Amino acid sequence: MSAIDNPYYSPEFHGDYELVDIGRLELEEGGVIPACHLAVATFGTLSEARDNAILVTTWYSGTHQIWRDAYIGPGHALDPERYFIVVVDQIGSGLSTSPHNAAGPNAGIAMSAFPHVRIGDDVVAQERLLREHLGIETLELVVGGSMGAQQTYEWMVRFPGRVKRAAPIAGTARNTPHDFLFTRTLVEAITSDPGFAGGEYASNADVVAGLERHARIWGVMGFSTEFWKQEVWRALEFETAEAFLEGFLQPYFTAMDPNDLLCMAWKWQHGDVSRHTGGDLAAALGRVTATTFVMPIDEDMFFPVRDCAAEQQLVPGSELRVVQDVLGHLGLFSVNPEFMPQVDRHLRELLGTKV
Amino acid sequence: MSAIDNPYYSPEFHGDYELVDIGRLELEEGGVIPACHLAVATFGTLSEARDNAILVTTWYSGTHQIWRDAYIGPGHALDPERYFIVVVDQIGSGLSTSPHNAAGPNAGIAMSAFPHVRIGDDVVAQERLLREHLGIETLELVVGGSMGAQQTYEWMVRFPGRVKRAAPIAGTARNTPHDFLFTRTLVEAITSDPGFAGGEYASNADVVAGLERHARIWGVMGFSTEFWKQEVWRALEFETAEAFLEGFLQPYFTAMDPNDLLCMAWKWQHGDVSRHTGGDLAAALGRVTATTFVMPIDEDMFFPVRDCAAEQQLVPGSELRVVQDVLGHLGLFSVNPEFMPQVDRHLRELLGTKV
Repeated sequence: MSAIDNPYYSPEFHGDYELVDIGRLELEEGGVIPACHLAVATFGTLSEARDNAILVTTWYSGTHQIWRDAYIGPGHALDPERYFIVVVDQIGSGLSTSPHNAAGPNAGIAMSAFPHVRIGDDVVAQERLLREHLGIETLELVVGGSMGAQQTYEWMVRFPGRVKRAAPIAGTARNTPHDFLFTRTLVEAITSDPGFAGGEYASNADVVAGLERHARIWGVMGFSTEFWKQEVWRALEFETAEAFLEGFLQPYFTAMDPNDLLCMAWKWQHGDVSRHTGGDLAAALGRVTATTFVMPIDEDMFFPVRDCAAEQQLVPGSELRVVQDVLGHLGLFSVNPEFMPQVDRHLRELLGTKV
Repeated sequence: MSAIDNPYYSPEFHGDYELVDIGRLELEEGGVIPACHLAVATFGTLSEARDNAILVTTWYSGTHQIWRDAYIGPGHALDPERYFIVVVDQIGSGLSTSPHNAAGPNAGIAMSAFPHVRIGDDVVAQERLLREHLGIETLELVVGGSMGAQQTYEWMVRFPGRVKRAAPIAGTARNTPHDFLFTRTLVEAITSDPGFAGGEYASNADVVAGLERHARIWGVMGFSTEFWKQEVWRALEFETAEAFLEGFLQPYFTAMDPNDLLCMAWKWQHGDVSRHTGGDLAAALGRVTATTFVMPIDEDMFFPVRDCAAEQQLVPGSELRVVQDVLGHLGLFSVNPEFMPQVDRHLRELLGTKV
């Protein structure tokens, strides 16, 4: 029940970031994070008028690293020469306050004692960080993929006047029942490992078998059937599908902390902006004033286009912009050279809209 | 390493069937079943000319019971008043020779000692049964769903002159890489349970946690995202998705034998008619002379229409007949009242073709 060391969660693997202590965070579900630290990476310079800020939210297992490497930079829509781009790693990401690193004032919530966190808690924390620590009140754009889309929707509904534009990519405002069940199989792959020991393992290496099974379930749902059929992994220079799993997807997840993944999984499962409106999703999304592009990925197996399109119809004045990628959901990794040009085209157009 | 009792595999749960000993079966992978017993249920009467026989093959976890209850009967295309319908439960089904029931001359291959069985072994066994025990050389129709479709394709390629018509439903001739990975997650849900004990458990109850996880993975892939979103389970008189899982899908699988499921899973993973032609699928399917309707289910998550359509294009003179069912793959259970009328219409038309 005390924090453990995991070298994966360090600048060596994720590049530079700043840890900002935003103070005590009371959680929706009743728990408390005594000293909530958010890992933050910024790109570009905040204008004097403080009117060029973009917030990027992160997905399950992902951090600012993938955004820095693939999505942000000169030539991209997220151009640091023009915008001040703030990527905030989610609570439970392993970089921000998370079960495995809860120490000092957070020692009481380490490991299995970590409280349930909701998407809304992240957004409240991000808003405080932006306002109190960066002096940002209004965002030109909020953008994120998957769980990052959940946070984007939460921003759109919770702080409609503060978000000028929004781009939820490959994610939903209210988690679907199918997604809930899918995430449950991920959770169970981890918790069923005897090495998990109810969350009180000494090292993530004790749970490697469960983390590997978790990775292989991702292999089934994270990529599309065509990804496997067309052997798209060959473009990543693997010789066999098995080598791809063993050389890419399994190491990606076995480096991570089981409790951290479970924290994010619970949050993902319970993502739902309609809790602001007594369960009425149309009423919640009807509050949105941001100019919004809803951007599902055509081959996504668990955030299928039709689920995203149904929500898009409820967002006033929004547009559906489908991204084509045979990788499916994990197209978000941006390994397909045709992925980013589409994302950039949509985001550039969105940023070009007058608001 | 000796057979165990499991009351689920009995006429009480599956209705009447006959156990036919077809003798020693040498297996493709090198193993042997010393005395292969096939569970067989027949409906109708074989004509004197022996020209009205239909063979039905079974899917993973399914037996003749579902075919008898849902697919066969007066008013259905599979009409016992006109046809002699033979349903053969697959090896590993728990009714035919299987790991959990291997006793007597098969005692040496009980439980974890059971050899790998291929789809081709089932078809060889079925052909022997039909010819030697029922005097049937030619089949008016071979039809099966899922793994039953794999067996149907094997019949079409292996015995082209003996199969007049064929209807592979919701399955493929060569298993896809995605299906292989999906099935692996099912296998691992079982084998990772400490109670599995390397296949030497004393009762399937020892593996209930693994079997339940296996059932929940089926919940994610077996039904469609829309099934869950539209809460189609309400039509089955459940109050919640959780109640449906606990009252339907989990009990369905926890009654079964883990080694039997693994035997079928391995067979499913390795289904491939192109092993007859050195890996050339077009050459294998080019051998087919049966009049064939390829019948995928539109919402199937793991035998998607495009995979089935790609194979259909390789079968000379075949037609693609897509069945609409929001249940997805497990539409095969025929709980949707709109499922059987479609299947019957296609099969009736197929049986009406002159060959």
